[in-house]
Amino acid sequence: MFPVRDIAVFSGSAHPELAAEICLHLGVPLAPTKTSRFANDCIEVQLQGNCREKDVFLIQPLVPPTQENLVELLFMLNAARGASAGRITVVLPHYAYARSDKKDAPRISIGGRLVADLLTTAGADRVLAMTLHSPQVHGFFGIPVDHLHALRELAEHFRGYDLSNTVVVSPDLGNAKEAAAFARLLDVEVAAGAKQRFADDKVVISTVIGDVTDRDVIVLDDEIAKGSTVFELLARLRERNVRSVRVACTHGLFSGDAIKRLSEEKEIEEIVCTNTVPIPAENHTEKLTVLSVAPALAEAMRRIHNGESVSALFA
Amino acid sequence: MFPVRDIAVFSGSAHPELAAEICLHLGVPLAPTKTSRFANDCIEVQLQGNCREKDVFLIQPLVPPTQENLVELLFMLNAARGASAGRITVVLPHYAYARSDKKDAPRISIGGRLVADLLTTAGADRVLAMTLHSPQVHGFFGIPVDHLHALRELAEHFRGYDLSNTVVVSPDLGNAKEAAAFARLLDVEVAAGAKQRFADDKVVISTVIGDVTDRDVIVLDDEIAKGSTVFELLARLRERNVRSVRVACTHGLFSGDAIKRLSEEKEIEEIVCTNTVPIPAENHTEKLTVLSVAPALAEAMRRIHNGESVSALFA
Amino acid sequence: MFPVRDIAVFSGSAHPELAAEICLHLGVPLAPTKTSRFANDCIEVQLQGNCREKDVFLIQPLVPPTQENLVELLFMLNAARGASAGRITVVLPHYAYARSDKKDAPRISIGGRLVADLLTTAGADRVLAMTLHSPQVHGFFGIPVDHLHALRELAEHFRGYDLSNTVVVSPDLGNAKEAAAFARLLDVEVAAGAKQRFADDKVVISTVIGDVTDRDVIVLDDEIAKGSTVFELLARLRERNVRSVRVACTHGLFSGDAIKRLSEEKEIEEIVCTNTVPIPAENHTEKLTVLSVAPALAEAMRRIHNGESVSALFA
Amino acid sequence: MFPVRDIAVFSGSAHPELAAEICLHLGVPLAPTKTSRFANDCIEVQLQGNCREKDVFLIQPLVPPTQENLVELLFMLNAARGASAGRITVVLPHYAYARSDKKDAPRISIGGRLVADLLTTAGADRVLAMTLHSPQVHGFFGIPVDHLHALRELAEHFRGYDLSNTVVVSPDLGNAKEAAAFARLLDVEVAAGAKQRFADDKVVISTVIGDVTDRDVIVLDDEIAKGSTVFELLARLRERNVRSVRVACTHGLFSGDAIKRLSEEKEIEEIVCTNTVPIPAENHTEKLTVLSVAPALAEAMRRIHNGESVSALFA
Amino acid sequence: MFPVRDIAVFSGSAHPELAAEICLHLGVPLAPTKTSRFANDCIEVQLQGNCREKDVFLIQPLVPPTQENLVELLFMLNAARGASAGRITVVLPHYAYARSDKKDAPRISIGGRLVADLLTTAGADRVLAMTLHSPQVHGFFGIPVDHLHALRELAEHFRGYDLSNTVVVSPDLGNAKEAAAFARLLDVEVAAGAKQRFADDKVVISTVIGDVTDRDVIVLDDEIAKGSTVFELLARLRERNVRSVRVACTHGLFSGDAIKRLSEEKEIEEIVCTNTVPIPAENHTEKLTVLSVAPALAEAMRRIHNGESVSALFA
Amino acid sequence: MFPVRDIAVFSGSAHPELAAEICLHLGVPLAPTKTSRFANDCIEVQLQGNCREKDVFLIQPLVPPTQENLVELLFMLNAARGASAGRITVVLPHYAYARSDKKDAPRISIGGRLVADLLTTAGADRVLAMTLHSPQVHGFFGIPVDHLHALRELAEHFRGYDLSNTVVVSPDLGNAKEAAAFARLLDVEVAAGAKQRFADDKVVISTVIGDVTDRDVIVLDDEIAKGSTVFELLARLRERNVRSVRVACTHGLFSGDAIKRLSEEKEIEEIVCTNTVPIPAENHTEKLTVLSVAPALAEAMRRIHNGESVSALFA
Repeated sequence: MFPVRDIAVFSGSAHPELAAEICLHLGVPLAPTKTSRFANDCIEVQLQGNCREKDVFLIQPLVPPTQENLVELLFMLNAARGASAGRITVVLPHYAYARSDKKDAPRISIGGRLVADLLTTAGADRVLAMTLHSPQVHGFFGIPVDHLHALRELAEHFRGYDLSNTVVVSPDLGNAKEAAAFARLLDVEVAAGAKQRFADDKVVISTVIGDVTDRDVIVLDDEIAKGSTVFELLARLRERNVRSVRVACTHGLFSGDAIKRLSEEKEIEEIVCTNTVPIPAENHTEKLTVLSVAPALAEAMRRIHNGESVSALFA
Repeated sequence: MFPVRDIAVFSGSAHPELAAEICLHLGVPLAPTKTSRFANDCIEVQLQGNCREKDVFLIQPLVPPTQENLVELLFMLNAARGASAGRITVVLPHYAYARSDKKDAPRISIGGRLVADLLTTAGADRVLAMTLHSPQVHGFFGIPVDHLHALRELAEHFRGYDLSNTVVVSPDLGNAKEAAAFARLLDVEVAAGAKQRFADDKVVISTVIGDVTDRDVIVLDDEIAKGSTVFELLARLRERNVRSVRVACTHGLFSGDAIKRLSEEKEIEEIVCTNTVPIPAENHTEKLTVLSVAPALAEAMRRIHNGESVSALFA
Repeated sequence: MFPVRDIAVFSGSAHPELAAEICLHLGVPLAPTKTSRFANDCIEVQLQGNCREKDVFLIQPLVPPTQENLVELLFMLNAARGASAGRITVVLPHYAYARSDKKDAPRISIGGRLVADLLTTAGADRVLAMTLHSPQVHGFFGIPVDHLHALRELAEHFRGYDLSNTVVVSPDLGNAKEAAAFARLLDVEVAAGAKQRFADDKVVISTVIGDVTDRDVIVLDDEIAKGSTVFELLARLRERNVRSVRVACTHGLFSGDAIKRLSEEKEIEEIVCTNTVPIPAENHTEKLTVLSVAPALAEAMRRIHNGESVSALFA
Repeated sequence: MFPVRDIAVFSGSAHPELAAEICLHLGVPLAPTKTSRFANDCIEVQLQGNCREKDVFLIQPLVPPTQENLVELLFMLNAARGASAGRITVVLPHYAYARSDKKDAPRISIGGRLVADLLTTAGADRVLAMTLHSPQVHGFFGIPVDHLHALRELAEHFRGYDLSNTVVVSPDLGNAKEAAAFARLLDVEVAAGAKQRFADDKVVISTVIGDVTDRDVIVLDDEIAKGSTVFELLARLRERNVRSVRVACTHGLFSGDAIKRLSEEKEIEEIVCTNTVPIPAENHTEKLTVLSVAPALAEAMRRIHNGESVSALFA
Repeated sequence: MFPVRDIAVFSGSAHPELAAEICLHLGVPLAPTKTSRFANDCIEVQLQGNCREKDVFLIQPLVPPTQENLVELLFMLNAARGASAGRITVVLPHYAYARSDKKDAPRISIGGRLVADLLTTAGADRVLAMTLHSPQVHGFFGIPVDHLHALRELAEHFRGYDLSNTVVVSPDLGNAKEAAAFARLLDVEVAAGAKQRFADDKVVISTVIGDVTDRDVIVLDDEIAKGSTVFELLARLRERNVRSVRVACTHGLFSGDAIKRLSEEKEIEEIVCTNTVPIPAENHTEKLTVLSVAPALAEAMRRIHNGESVSALFA
Repeated sequence: MFPVRDIAVFSGSAHPELAAEICLHLGVPLAPTKTSRFANDCIEVQLQGNCREKDVFLIQPLVPPTQENLVELLFMLNAARGASAGRITVVLPHYAYARSDKKDAPRISIGGRLVADLLTTAGADRVLAMTLHSPQVHGFFGIPVDHLHALRELAEHFRGYDLSNTVVVSPDLGNAKEAAAFARLLDVEVAAGAKQRFADDKVVISTVIGDVTDRDVIVLDDEIAKGSTVFELLARLRERNVRSVRVACTHGLFSGDAIKRLSEEKEIEEIVCTNTVPIPAENHTEKLTVLSVAPALAEAMRRIHNGESVSALFA
């Protein structure tokens, strides 16, 4: 109901490096957040910069330790609302809870919906998200969501290579739409694996649809955590005698020693991800390339702040 | 709107021993909860027992790791509501967020209110709590709260001693009301320290009001975490030449090596707490006595289930 | 908050035959609903049977004329709540709005979520749905949903045939999970088409994964409206020289002359659907078999009314 | 919470001509709305113009097909909110559901209240309405309502006649207040019928209070649908030997052949209504005059956009 | 969500005599309410009887001092909800705020809607009301309302007279429907005044429609406060040479010296009202007869408690 | 969602003098409010100044008659929201309901929380409060609260005296924090009484901690109503032979003859309060000094209107 004077950007503990980089692109300072704990481990958040009537952005990817990061974000929202923020946008470069999007067993939680409701209760007015696990998750939010993809960043990177013999392979026909869009950006062909998930970390890919033999393959997925899907796809690709493999994803979670094991596969020449998720130093192997989504997020935030079309940007 | 047939009790990860003991007293089975994690650390909860139209109780003290335990509880609520629970009562033997009950600095969170709202959003119909840090926290909840105290359990224990020379000492005049009630139960006198808190773990007690010299002192507090308050009070009591000291509290959080340091104080003959909070094996020193609140919580749950007065019980 | 004495079942205009059949199985009368219109076309609904404190079920598949049927259902909810219904369950044998489950263009509505919210605003306490278009739609509802499938009814039907040479084919790998479950019920193999949708009624199936040559095929889909997907799949199956084709689906919408055109295909020996959607007399061709889901819905309603597990039933 | 940069006006399917005329007066373009349907008749709305942070007006009189138009409006609201509209005003030149404003039989819906709640759920921030059926309907909305009347437009028209022998007659004493205000604008006398409604389309007018014999009568009503009230009043006026009759109303719904039958009455010299409701070509008889409310609605929208007083305008 | 064991009835300060009489008819005790005040005039309410899971009825007509009585009722609701009442029904024998039901001037409150929302916020689950000022007020409540009339009580009283020459007169054609129903109960004719209100206490009745000369008149209105309407009607009736006048209403507010002034009118033989509103001792003039609505309210409460139809009772 | 053009300030009946003085400091006119009553005592509020899109401030301390003033404020909120106010800030110089902040007996209301919820329901967007009775009351509000203190005004006054021998005494250790802050502003020492409250107007102070003998005492409390606490403290101070006593508080409610009785105590040289609460003429004794908080409230309102930090001001 009120003119927002200025933008104010805060970062939680999850990924301050990304927040700092975004602020650099925006040309605004990153206001510090002070998170302390009572002796009984109850946290308390203080936003250390004026919020009153400002256009507040809270940057916090929900990455491991996911639950700690979620509660910190909820407390940041509570503090911002209590401090009379003019509008509060939650920037979620990664939304881990999108994985919990259906009720495929009795009496289980649907975390993707619950957390959307919790963010609203705590004070979120809108969300800026990146590459949500399934497009329906958008509908879990009762508040407006701007949903970006990192395909342009990934495409920009691969355009540096000779792509004359290249095919993009989606491990899953369910995500083939995104792979096809990516292939169009690179002007190459697309193929897809027929994947069936039996458990969170157990998948079987029965076949690959499309021509991959003797081709340079770019595997595209939304996120890589334990890497099970990639390893399974790699087995199929090997059987089809592909020439080379590069792996690309938006969210490089690389849990456990996934990055090490992927790097050890000789067919894999490169692993490309973005910095939606913090990459610890020990994961920076020779084969890993990390692209930055900070410019894209900064541009979206600038447009949101100025009331310009975000969909126009990413058309 | 529907007749609840049966009681169904579930426990989160925070304190399954207490939940099991409560169920023993209630004479009902403790239905298992399965908490798993996706590769990106997003949790998923499955309640492994029928909830439909049942009178569901979810037992979870919010103790360290407090944020993990909170999110697990929120997911349990989501699962229970989605599974058509008839009514959901959250049993909070300890509510860590009660410590965050005021806005004493600009732009800070008020966790006690926020978490009350989050529990309601996730599906809680009512709350059963024990010894909340301040009585105003009751008003943070928009849903009915039954608020128990452990004074009867503590009094029962101390009645086993010769109390002819005893005085109950509250470290803080602010809590003196509870100490006075406790003293009445024991038919002894009461005294109180004049405490001023400078930070969560830094307190000064300038004096003790009431007669303590040559007396057997029972120090009563609501919770002991780092123990700073007790050590400060002990210094004042020593100056007044008390004869002996016993320390009693409801919530024995004992963070760090608090229990060890308290046990090493020679004036302290005994430390008494309840099992609202799990006590790790290494804290079970010779001087520590842990009383069980399971019978009291079970009786309150029975009365809630049967629609009998809870206030009548604890009058 | 109140004991519900009796069940009361009402039907809207969408599919009174199904409602009547369900009531026959439940052994309760179908109370009439009177829908009238003011001269300006504003509708008015009167539930013609006592609702007070009753366990009210409103049966209304959201089928064409979908918008008329939706508004009638919303008015029925308003009337039931105003008449002090004890609990209101919306029975949605078909939920047309599930098709609108994502935001794949700027500034479009997400009908699946919006209608879920409208039903809640109008007074729905819970939903009983059948074969929702995507499993994520479950999460669009903030109230409990029981989600049934018609696989058992369809399987029962096909067990009457010689299945020794049969394979179940899903037109879409995205739905292959349900086809696989169906195949397991029949103890036969499963195959799937690789489908890509370009518009609501324009799909391309590039290939079929799995062995279908010389086989008797059962095509399984969730709904058939214009039939575009089936015709496309049929072209692929023909190329692979299948022996015979039977088409099975839950929701037989058959818009336009779909049923006639399907019946004219000589490979198609039978079209099997259920009565979640009313089938007009002119669609009852020789090749069409309509199975009833009334017993299944009645049993689920009985269990909901009695507080028994619904998931147990359909495990 | 945000400065709205510009106005954005969209029209649903109900009355695009009125919307276009309003935009002409406002000097802003009418952004197109694309309403499509899935094969199962579920609609989908896309607003084809940027909404972000804009002051969005959605123009849709709720006229026949009323339920279709209502659902389209709800979907437009959902799309506008999801597209980050700064503020959304629903312009309701006719609100059919105002007719359903009380519970005069057991277990009936109160559509006027229900639809007010549905509009809010779907995202409406405020409403601009015209000549609501009863003034209490204002209170059904929980959001601000600006309520215009078309009396000035009607008065302007009749000032063109010799009014020296004229009397304004309200068919109903319940609405006589509006007729009296209209008579004051024309500086003529007022009379009223004593009307009793037995059903939506069955009314009896027992007498007419006031002097009408040998007078030129202007009958004023809020809406004319089947015309039953006017025909009944005409019978009474005929008995009192009035000289001539002109009929005026805001909402010219003219259902069935009402306009034809009214035109055939020889006492009726003219029928005057406004364009709050679309008038099909076949209703444009010689006796019918349609006045435009577009200038009034446009001026109100301009004032709402600029934050100027609307009540001042129509005082 | 829970079986309500027993009924619990509490009365506020507004009209304890009526509450006591209702309880006598119900055969349940009236539990006391203790309303105290802090030194700063802030009230505090304690319900002095167990509420847990009970079917709680709070009886409080909103009569002068109306604002004090409203706030007391809101605090009673808060206390009942906090005390885990199973269901809370507000019994409103008189709802003063129904007079404020439209926005007939800029920037005025619509009290009838606001207070309906406040009651819901404070915890009301349903309302039992009597003779609301206009039927649309029903739609101001988002919770179920049972709306009784006192016509049967009034008719019962008048059946004791010789009614052969009697006519019922409504002061206002707007309320003529209720007068007609009343006349049918007495098997007599009906007439009505043509009333126009210029201010809350300034009305003009221009004529009376129907035959009243030499008749025994029963004037029927919903409420009588200052009596302006009755005095105005009496002037018209006098001009028509009526034989006698009896005045009947549901709500006998009789503000100022209204009862005295009415009693002094020689044509008025009797004034009949009900006890929805407390009648102070000084108003009990010879001409005043007060009928009790306690049996009707008690019967409605019994039916609400038992889940029986209330509309059936008053058909 | 909209740029607020101008500030609009309205006052209820509680304390128009304070409102007028605030407006003088703000340099804006005080728009009149017209509160009228229907014959049945139902109030109606009209805000007599344009509110549309304005930044509306409603000034109303909740002081006796507290319930009347509360309801008037709720109606003002309803009128402002209905009149399309851009944002509504409730200015509560005194919040009487803060006294009711805990549930210390079964089945009692928690007025501080209930009234916070009622204000939100009626339309409040934010609150500006002064010296709330306990800091936890802040958390009762779900909307942002700016919480001022009057210590600067009080300190300014006392700096005019010779403070070399002065000590500030808090009657209650619970409020000692505020007294300590006040003492720091005056650069003097602090002491505190050990107070125990047995009822709203019955307190016992057992001792005074700190050196007061032969000192000039300034007693500081948040509010003085009946004065019981001050009289009790005075008895203790007399026993310790203080040299002189001055009494200071923010809220000078002075119920009954409190001011007269305080003035008669010979040790009390001066009573200082602020004008958060209206002081009737008869209370203006020689010993009473009333300081104005109008400049502080005006400055806070100016900062709220301009989106400047309020906490910065009062650091």
